[in-house]
Amino acid sequence: MVTLDFDKMNGLIPAVVQDYKTNEVLMLGFMTPAAWTATLSTGKATFFSRTRKALWEKGKTSGHVQLVKEIRVDCDNDTILLLVEQVGGAACHTGHRSCFFKKIENGAVKIIGKPVFDPREVYHK
Amino acid sequence: MVTLDFDKMNGLIPAVVQDYKTNEVLMLGFMTPAAWTATLSTGKATFFSRTRKALWEKGKTSGHVQLVKEIRVDCDNDTILLLVEQVGGAACHTGHRSCFFKKIENGAVKIIGKPVFDPREVYHK
Repeated sequence: MVTLDFDKMNGLIPAVVQDYKTNEVLMLGFMTPAAWTATLSTGKATFFSRTRKALWEKGKTSGHVQLVKEIRVDCDNDTILLLVEQVGGAACHTGHRSCFFKKIENGAVKIIGKPVFDPREVYHK
Repeated sequence: MVTLDFDKMNGLIPAVVQDYKTNEVLMLGFMTPAAWTATLSTGKATFFSRTRKALWEKGKTSGHVQLVKEIRVDCDNDTILLLVEQVGGAACHTGHRSCFFKKIENGAVKIIGKPVFDPREVYHK
């Protein structure tokens, strides 16, 4: 098995999440060794929330979990790439398919696409 | 213009690099404010090398630069996504198209694809 290098970032490794069908990059999260182990054992993308300082199974609240279809590791073993099936069709808490919905164009921000869901309905806030 | 959040990672922001035609994720680098400014002004992906602690224009040594076709920023303004044209056809210093050439399969590492170039010829080592 591969030995990941968690030392470079004080216990964290960035994990890029990509849609396994469209190859769209959905988000980037960070994993601790515990998040990595949970991802492997459950088959659901699990990260470490830097703001909440806790393990975070993506979609636990919204139901929009990410079913891991393939796992790749980079040349230096310090970055993870997950190819996932995004349940609910959107990875972003704003309701957008991808968290990368802001395009920089001539120095300005242009929003790409429309939200798939209404965050107020999903998170009941 | 968007104000990026460099504070979360002590001055660094992760930048995912994706092939603008195939959507293949090529690599992940980190940017400082100076790397971000250089990327915007030169149109070539520029990162901060954490090992060398210096600005690093990707491909400066090998000639395999990354021409930036599109820039996206995520919901939290703390991650960048670059869509690039990879000159030379390979992003990885090993000669592989993508740095993510190691697939985890049943706990074992499986190498995907063959190197596009021979690193010994490109880096003259």
